[in-house]
Amino acid sequence: MYAAIAGVIGLLFAGYLAMSVLKEDQGTQRMKELSQAIFEGAMAFLNRQYRTLIPFAVIIFGALLYGNWGNQKLAWGQAISFLVGASFSAVAGYVGMTIATKSNARTTAAAMRGLNEALSVAFRGGAVMGMSVAGLGLLGVSVLYIVYQDAVIINSFAFGASVIALFARVGGGIYTKAADVGADLVGKVEAGIPEDDPRNPAVIADNVGDNVGDTAGMGADLYESYAATTIAAMLIGVTVFPGRLEGIFYPLLIGAAGLIAAIIASFFVRTTEDGNPQMALNKGLWGTNVLTAVATYFIAQSLFADIPASSAFPSGVPLGLTISVIAGLLVNVAIGWITEYYTSYNYKPAQHIASSSLTGPATNIIAGIGVGLKSTALPIIVIVIAIAVSYNYAGIYGIAMAAMGMLCTAGMVVAIDSFGPVADNAGGIAEMAELGPEVRKKTDKLDAVGNTTAAVAKGFAIGSAALTALALFTAFAEEVIKSPGVSSALHGGHLVLNLLEPKIIIGLFIGGTVPFLFCAFAMEAVGKAAFEMIGEVRRQFREIPGLMEGKAKPDYARCVDISTRAAIRQMIAPGLLAVITPLIVGFGFGAQALGGMLAGVTVAGVLLAIFMG
Amino acid sequence: MYAAIAGVIGLLFAGYLAMSVLKEDQGTQRMKELSQAIFEGAMAFLNRQYRTLIPFAVIIFGALLYGNWGNQKLAWGQAISFLVGASFSAVAGYVGMTIATKSNARTTAAAMRGLNEALSVAFRGGAVMGMSVAGLGLLGVSVLYIVYQDAVIINSFAFGASVIALFARVGGGIYTKAADVGADLVGKVEAGIPEDDPRNPAVIADNVGDNVGDTAGMGADLYESYAATTIAAMLIGVTVFPGRLEGIFYPLLIGAAGLIAAIIASFFVRTTEDGNPQMALNKGLWGTNVLTAVATYFIAQSLFADIPASSAFPSGVPLGLTISVIAGLLVNVAIGWITEYYTSYNYKPAQHIASSSLTGPATNIIAGIGVGLKSTALPIIVIVIAIAVSYNYAGIYGIAMAAMGMLCTAGMVVAIDSFGPVADNAGGIAEMAELGPEVRKKTDKLDAVGNTTAAVAKGFAIGSAALTALALFTAFAEEVIKSPGVSSALHGGHLVLNLLEPKIIIGLFIGGTVPFLFCAFAMEAVGKAAFEMIGEVRRQFREIPGLMEGKAKPDYARCVDISTRAAIRQMIAPGLLAVITPLIVGFGFGAQALGGMLAGVTVAGVLLAIFMG
Repeated sequence: MYAAIAGVIGLLFAGYLAMSVLKEDQGTQRMKELSQAIFEGAMAFLNRQYRTLIPFAVIIFGALLYGNWGNQKLAWGQAISFLVGASFSAVAGYVGMTIATKSNARTTAAAMRGLNEALSVAFRGGAVMGMSVAGLGLLGVSVLYIVYQDAVIINSFAFGASVIALFARVGGGIYTKAADVGADLVGKVEAGIPEDDPRNPAVIADNVGDNVGDTAGMGADLYESYAATTIAAMLIGVTVFPGRLEGIFYPLLIGAAGLIAAIIASFFVRTTEDGNPQMALNKGLWGTNVLTAVATYFIAQSLFADIPASSAFPSGVPLGLTISVIAGLLVNVAIGWITEYYTSYNYKPAQHIASSSLTGPATNIIAGIGVGLKSTALPIIVIVIAIAVSYNYAGIYGIAMAAMGMLCTAGMVVAIDSFGPVADNAGGIAEMAELGPEVRKKTDKLDAVGNTTAAVAKGFAIGSAALTALALFTAFAEEVIKSPGVSSALHGGHLVLNLLEPKIIIGLFIGGTVPFLFCAFAMEAVGKAAFEMIGEVRRQFREIPGLMEGKAKPDYARCVDISTRAAIRQMIAPGLLAVITPLIVGFGFGAQALGGMLAGVTVAGVLLAIFMG
Repeated sequence: MYAAIAGVIGLLFAGYLAMSVLKEDQGTQRMKELSQAIFEGAMAFLNRQYRTLIPFAVIIFGALLYGNWGNQKLAWGQAISFLVGASFSAVAGYVGMTIATKSNARTTAAAMRGLNEALSVAFRGGAVMGMSVAGLGLLGVSVLYIVYQDAVIINSFAFGASVIALFARVGGGIYTKAADVGADLVGKVEAGIPEDDPRNPAVIADNVGDNVGDTAGMGADLYESYAATTIAAMLIGVTVFPGRLEGIFYPLLIGAAGLIAAIIASFFVRTTEDGNPQMALNKGLWGTNVLTAVATYFIAQSLFADIPASSAFPSGVPLGLTISVIAGLLVNVAIGWITEYYTSYNYKPAQHIASSSLTGPATNIIAGIGVGLKSTALPIIVIVIAIAVSYNYAGIYGIAMAAMGMLCTAGMVVAIDSFGPVADNAGGIAEMAELGPEVRKKTDKLDAVGNTTAAVAKGFAIGSAALTALALFTAFAEEVIKSPGVSSALHGGHLVLNLLEPKIIIGLFIGGTVPFLFCAFAMEAVGKAAFEMIGEVRRQFREIPGLMEGKAKPDYARCVDISTRAAIRQMIAPGLLAVITPLIVGFGFGAQALGGMLAGVTVAGVLLAIFMG
């Protein structure tokens, strides 16, 4: 009940933020038009994306009903939870994207008045997505638990979130990269015109892409991780604290604490005219972390003080759980630093890539791939330490709570992440509306910060996914024990996935290959779409008379259409790969091979994701 | 004893081939000079490389003695086996490289007479390396077994091979790629002069690089896989057939069969004037496969006919083992086809990358990385099928014998692989000695085939390494059981590496990261060396008057020196990473975490290797 109330408070705060942003001035007629074009492009994409996903959702809804038909409560409970999980994700996407794309021109207009004003509009515009994601996630899980009182049933909520996230992330990613590559290669490199130049036909598509990739895609992604982690921790809590409900309540209350902390900390986000906006956002993030860390101890104390220390909780339950959650929060901090180190031009890696480019694209690529491969080591070390610490202090449940510690700050992380596209679009609008260098200087400052926060949010998404996967993996094992036909895999009632059995190794190999293939599909999709985009932009430069002189307008809509069509069409193959492979391995080779596969997917997936990032 | 005799026959055949090649005509004075320059560059590199490795070898020799001091037979046996393994590798490297680098001008000269003559010289020149690798590997293992009668002791032979292979592969790889990138980028791309143009200062380094990378590096690599697989199969054989020696003899005899088959099949390698040299080499490879497949059945029948079928050998031992070995041979064939599909310009992947390059380097890279990622799927499926089939017919021993089935053909595979650099160098010498288009046309034909065989050999090395790793992994588990302090990890006397234990997952994550970091070091080394090489080539083009007009000679030696220094210096870090990480994980977190790590290294390593290839 407390968690549901916190979810409602988060949504009310999102509503308040949305209204406050919409009251802001939109600037000139030209600015309004540009913002409207981006808004329409983004909405058109979301509409087509969600519409494409309806058949999938219907099939899965039917499968959940059919598969559990013998147990009506389970069947309807899982089907309905699935639907709620998927549709809440879509709602968060619509609401967050609407406000984010309506905040860009308002941020530009605010930048005419001052840096703090612009920061404030952009942050509030992005925070609507953040609060919607965390609020709907928490509300959905807690209300469904109040209704069904069974974590196994509401697990389908995370499944619904997962299906949307999978396609939203891939579709949004293809959209944004195709538009980005197309706009930059022909515009910046070939024609030598600046970023966001209104003469570039792909410029609106590029701005739409920032939103559908970083705001909608990332939002759906973290909403899914958030829901999955919460429910996985609840599932493990049932086993770890048999006969008690506190193991179920604790993750929900940590989610509530993180959300309220994010609301409070959002008031810390402010800067001065000469200040560094990065500092302002960092204050929001740090505030959330510190407030959550404090709250987590009191919550653990109030729930678990009466349980004595045990082998899983050698320092007692409250302290053990507090340490686990804080381990998760510290992973956030560490991954933030590591990401900044590897992506900011202030540090050696980016400088090394830049200097390697002096001898041409070949050495640039060699250096870039080298740095990417190298960048996997530190995040893995951080994640491994968090696993070891949380396991030593609080057992398997501790690992799930470390994941929860990372993800309970999702409200703030998504807010800061969604700030990026708003700031980026604001700069684009300033350029396209020809507002002069003093405005552009301010939006550039915000945009540079937005690029870093987007990279940090990606690191956060990967790191939290790794811990979430482990929590889900444990929950998977708990559920497998109850299935028929796995008795051969059990040792003393526990599932054993012995790496020395060829079945497990086969699963591990297949699992490791899935992320490679998934990435290949995604890269190919981007390549094809970018190829088409480049052709179209070149064609417009060539065929529209007076375009380069600024006397004629390019056909923005065609480029928006290329990205949209490509993204929708090409998100299907990688999505299906991720959905179908576990079914084939599981039904074909059994639960143990599936376990090996899940481990392989997790390890190879995390490594490839960091490398790609 | 039979295996030792086969090893000697292999070496005698290598000697015969070497003498027959050295009798061939070397062509003009200019050709002799060029060949001599390549020979000297290659030898200088090998000398420095082996000299750098002596301290490592001494330390490990001492550690093996010190660590086993309580058991003098074990201590001296392991230390001496290590030394023999390492020095046989060096001997094979010296002998093979000497003949390979002395065959290039002779191949060019033979090309003046006819295509079959040139093919014959190049093949015989490369086959010396192939026969040396397989002959010394088989001889070393079998003689050491005759002496010590204990597979645990002679396991250090593989360890010695492994240390040399690690550094030879990395050092040779850095050398060849730095020279290749340097020569191509400045010569072909910037200055617009042809490949192997004598005006290019990096052209000798490039030709040396082909030898130290593909001949010495690949030879050492497969020599190590060969030795490791043979001994791992022997170790497993001890457990699977308790009280009998046939489980130890069988892998040795399969090695002998493969070597004799390769000798016989080498006489099938011939072509006509208008023929396709690829077909000639394929005949050699197919001949080896078929002859080995036939022999394997009779060997299994003669050793195991009296053992009844069991749960591990449901179709009986002889048939089960024959199927396993043939599964390995078929992996060779399948990986050959897959590699050709992904690397030859006759098929879609390479054509797709080429057409993506129409829109510039960015889409070229996106397409290339996409194809690379995608290319992991088929080899993994093939390997997984081989694991499943061989395990179902012959248990764990079957997996080891499938690996042996792949590797027993190493003599022919290395021969065909080493053919590549000889043909490539022959083309280079034809170009540099200005021999006219009709000679160059023939060497080009051989060179094109050599590029494919080099790629196929890489695929072979990766696939066999995957199966070898599994065989070693099982052997590792057998040994761990005997160690003190692992009783907690045992279930009924068997080691269990349960993926659901955080310790194993931590090992898996760390293990998965090692190949990424290893690749990063290697890429960085290549990047740095290529950067330096590009600078030097540009400097010579700029500063040596009359160079571009062909009136002055470039300073080849400096480029050779850059590659040599870079390769020697930079092979250390990745090598140490591979040597030290297992020690840290093993001693720091125990045998179980080490087991998880080995699984992680294998899966991520195989996937990354295929992607990189």
